[in-house]
Amino acid sequence: THYATLTDKDVSFFERLLSSGRTITNPDECLPFNIDYIKSCQGQSQLVLRPKTVDEVQAILRYCNEHQLAVCPQSGNTGLSGGSVPVFDEIILSLRLLNSIGNFDENSGVLTTDAGCVLEKLDTHVRQFGHIMPIDLGAKGSCLIGGNVATNAGGLRVVRFGSLRSAVLGLEVVLPDGSLLDCLTSIRKDNTGIDLKQPFIGSEGILGIVTRVALACPSLMSGVGLGFFACSSFEQILSTMRLARKICGETLSAIEFLDESTYNLSLKYLQRTNKPIESNKFYILIETMSSTDEQAKATLEKLATTALEKEFITDGTLAQDLTQYKDIWAIRERVSDALVADGYVFKYDFSLPTSRMYKLVEETEERMKQFSNVGNVTGFGHLGDQNLHLNVTVKDGYSDDIKQALEPWLYEWVAKEHGSVSAEHGLGLHKSKYLELNKGKHSLELMKQMKNMFDPKCILNPYKVLPYKTD
Amino acid sequence: THYATLTDKDVSFFERLLSSGRTITNPDECLPFNIDYIKSCQGQSQLVLRPKTVDEVQAILRYCNEHQLAVCPQSGNTGLSGGSVPVFDEIILSLRLLNSIGNFDENSGVLTTDAGCVLEKLDTHVRQFGHIMPIDLGAKGSCLIGGNVATNAGGLRVVRFGSLRSAVLGLEVVLPDGSLLDCLTSIRKDNTGIDLKQPFIGSEGILGIVTRVALACPSLMSGVGLGFFACSSFEQILSTMRLARKICGETLSAIEFLDESTYNLSLKYLQRTNKPIESNKFYILIETMSSTDEQAKATLEKLATTALEKEFITDGTLAQDLTQYKDIWAIRERVSDALVADGYVFKYDFSLPTSRMYKLVEETEERMKQFSNVGNVTGFGHLGDQNLHLNVTVKDGYSDDIKQALEPWLYEWVAKEHGSVSAEHGLGLHKSKYLELNKGKHSLELMKQMKNMFDPKCILNPYKVLPYKTD
Repeated sequence: THYATLTDKDVSFFERLLSSGRTITNPDECLPFNIDYIKSCQGQSQLVLRPKTVDEVQAILRYCNEHQLAVCPQSGNTGLSGGSVPVFDEIILSLRLLNSIGNFDENSGVLTTDAGCVLEKLDTHVRQFGHIMPIDLGAKGSCLIGGNVATNAGGLRVVRFGSLRSAVLGLEVVLPDGSLLDCLTSIRKDNTGIDLKQPFIGSEGILGIVTRVALACPSLMSGVGLGFFACSSFEQILSTMRLARKICGETLSAIEFLDESTYNLSLKYLQRTNKPIESNKFYILIETMSSTDEQAKATLEKLATTALEKEFITDGTLAQDLTQYKDIWAIRERVSDALVADGYVFKYDFSLPTSRMYKLVEETEERMKQFSNVGNVTGFGHLGDQNLHLNVTVKDGYSDDIKQALEPWLYEWVAKEHGSVSAEHGLGLHKSKYLELNKGKHSLELMKQMKNMFDPKCILNPYKVLPYKTD
Repeated sequence: THYATLTDKDVSFFERLLSSGRTITNPDECLPFNIDYIKSCQGQSQLVLRPKTVDEVQAILRYCNEHQLAVCPQSGNTGLSGGSVPVFDEIILSLRLLNSIGNFDENSGVLTTDAGCVLEKLDTHVRQFGHIMPIDLGAKGSCLIGGNVATNAGGLRVVRFGSLRSAVLGLEVVLPDGSLLDCLTSIRKDNTGIDLKQPFIGSEGILGIVTRVALACPSLMSGVGLGFFACSSFEQILSTMRLARKICGETLSAIEFLDESTYNLSLKYLQRTNKPIESNKFYILIETMSSTDEQAKATLEKLATTALEKEFITDGTLAQDLTQYKDIWAIRERVSDALVADGYVFKYDFSLPTSRMYKLVEETEERMKQFSNVGNVTGFGHLGDQNLHLNVTVKDGYSDDIKQALEPWLYEWVAKEHGSVSAEHGLGLHKSKYLELNKGKHSLELMKQMKNMFDPKCILNPYKVLPYKTD
């Protein structure tokens, strides 16, 4: 291999560097850091490092770069593409202890914080000041903001607040050679030269390690509305979405959809027997947020009335209080858990033109008919962002035959439609080989040049994102 | 010099490449391309090229790269930092004829267009479909969208829609060697590897030439409100802004301020004798946009009432119809013209913490007292984005003494406050020497590496953005 093998001398160096308990070599203790959240892959790292300060991160990388030791940076380890665990025996650099919440500027609504803070904790923190985090997603209780930024994580409110990238005002990054790149400004506008922080956002830790971030946090909207509607076709789902855009306008904060099988799986998982609305083929969830409660609810009520009149929807309910609000959201938010409970899951995260979004689910269903062990083919996701989560569950565990039938067929289908094979989950390990299919040879070549510029010894998160030849 | 001198052979090549009238060598015809909008600098280019197709742009750059000919890409030539005209005799590559409006996708609200289209024309185009452009600024009638993207232009609606960067979904770029970098996706979410288009946004044409863009266009809000208020101190301006954030919430679309001298200059320029509101030290302009007219006006009315009650404002007016709306906006939008009419203008574009924003204007005023030929020291700008436009007018034309008193003092003041020396105008030629002061040595080194990666022969827009030693 290209990399050096870890020696006792190396371990001693790290033990001297990090105070007690922060250099883990015990295989049992290393195990949870070696397995990813959905158990799709497992590495064999023998060393987990848990720095508490940026200085320590710098010292670790400086040493690893000098000694040609490969490093797998790990944030909350909630990724779905195998990007956050080692492939072989890379040293795991966990950022979880780098977790001081820094300053929140009440005038500008900008939060500056260490990368290792849990997203939900930060959200609770900024809510005290009348703001919210610009990102919200199912894993909020365990994912870390640094990983969110390093993967440009998506989630439920992209339709309102845009991608996380657009909220990142400043970044501090430790480069592979241990040097510090300070782009940690917290001002909203700054056009002074090439925006150096951008390549790090969404590059999944292959260019540098994000240690601090400055984020623009939207104002807290105290008024919230939530509608849940049933439709008999995907066309009606789209009509309802377009109507919502018109009627709810600037109050819209989420547009999500589920198909019948996703909905049923989620209700089963939640052990709900009485359904909130009459069953149908599709379900759409529309959330509004406004500075006043009346406005958030008024636009939604108008939407419900009009959509019923126009027969876009067949049934619907509006959340009357926080309990109902949480109850309805749970149906959407617990889908991932419901799928895992249904068997082994092949998970896909595509971006497609809305007119083609559900066609892919139908064709996949057709294609899976030959396999009696397929549990469910389900489609759901962030409709307002054209983001489809397609899942295939297998009753009796992983099946290579099914995988062969799905890949590369699915990836080619999406590429042909000019979609993205990864709308928000990233490429990680699982999808790196499809990068060229999506982006072409020239882009791939430039990405490699950029990797080479920041990480000439290639020590950071190897085998991820960019396709590696394992020769 | 590092570059080749233009020969007749070169000119013949370009004349063969571009059909009649698109290779300009006549000095009189070259002149307007050699002078910038505010007449702050003038180049001596002897050749202007006006390609109509991307193929032609590629052929031009391929030739220039091979023959080591320096190129100054030029968009609408409305820049304020001297970035869009040649410094010496660089070939001018005007993008104005690359101007086909492409496809607008009504489902996703995404416009794909050639780079040479005029912003206002595009806005008119997408309004037919119920959308607006994500950017609005004074120069909209003449600036081109490619230049807007290449400079990450700011403007009046950043507070609502974020920076232009966040609306750019896809880019097509011709690299200095003439190769085409195709990142022209039009999907809203795409996390597949390093986001290669990002470095080009805001880098002012030093890395590549933007030829096509895909932009997410916000929905047209048919309801609009506009309030114009007078305050007796900058503190009251800030209080009014905070109140507007709370009361107007998601309907807010612009928060602009002017000080007394800016206001008076603008009224004088507009030849208005009856003032819309009672005079005071400061003026704040607050615009709301909503899907309903009632809502846009209601939040603004509530703001006006509350601000009067709390004595944050001393007088104010709300636009009752489109004529009043345009009349009020004109006061803010014609400020630049008013300043030019007042004499030679030293223009600065800073980003600062709101609490320090006006302090700088006061200190500059104090500092200018020694000069009897200073006309006005004025402060105005995008308050909601902490973006201050500071201007010093000189009655009898450019003065080196005044410049010496202003620079580098101003730049150092802003750097000390962790602001930006260029919030939205870019560095161009005038401010490139202050890049290191703002970003530090390490960042500067990395920017140079990135420049070297994309443009190893350094043919694109030389002497701009990155500080050049002229030895």
